[in-house]
Amino acid sequence: MDENPSFSSLSDLPVEEFERALLSSVRHGADIRFHGVVRETEAGRLIKGIDYSAYESMAIRELERIVRELQEENPDRRIAVHHRVGFVAAGEASLLIRVQTAHSAEAFATCQECLRRIKAQVPIWKRVVYRHG
Amino acid sequence: MDENPSFSSLSDLPVEEFERALLSSVRHGADIRFHGVVRETEAGRLIKGIDYSAYESMAIRELERIVRELQEENPDRRIAVHHRVGFVAAGEASLLIRVQTAHSAEAFATCQECLRRIKAQVPIWKRVVYRHG
Repeated sequence: MDENPSFSSLSDLPVEEFERALLSSVRHGADIRFHGVVRETEAGRLIKGIDYSAYESMAIRELERIVRELQEENPDRRIAVHHRVGFVAAGEASLLIRVQTAHSAEAFATCQECLRRIKAQVPIWKRVVYRHG
Repeated sequence: MDENPSFSSLSDLPVEEFERALLSSVRHGADIRFHGVVRETEAGRLIKGIDYSAYESMAIRELERIVRELQEENPDRRIAVHHRVGFVAAGEASLLIRVQTAHSAEAFATCQECLRRIKAQVPIWKRVVYRHG
């Protein structure tokens, strides 16, 4: 049993609060943190940020399922995910994915696959808040 | 011109000192931090850690070249690399690669390619320090 199981959450808290959701490890040679950051432009227009809303009970269930399934593929991995909801200003992160694996190739692949599944399967909606008008 | 150019270094300082070598950005939607961590076993035996040594002037030149070449492929990226030398205990990181790009696929590819080139091209040697004997 892992003393530090995988983790997922969805709330209006900044992703930085969850950087330490996984402890450092002597069994994992690769540790990746991916931040998905709100950019300052959308379709060429300057924006203030993005307002994220979710069907929350379903979104957290989907996040948990994605993390659990990736975990079950290889129980030696650790995965932590936090998706922020509410208004996220340009330059701030709306998503954190942290992955720890024995070797690096698996860490990159797992983190990227986790991101792909979140984008495809989690019911979170984005409303762009423009700077002018 | 980027207000925050890419960065590379080689020293006995912990990688955590260099996490902020790149500032947060409103132009980069993807921000990846890769930590290469010393594991507690080597060939099935418990270890205390790894002692890294380098032909330093050449190693830093190679790190700089790798970062510069990846940067030149796309000037909109940012890349920061720190490789630690000296003794690194099991559970601590010997390598940090941070990459910021507009979109996520490029961030994963760039970070992974940077790691591949560091392993292949930078003259750093590892001496395993075993726990027993």
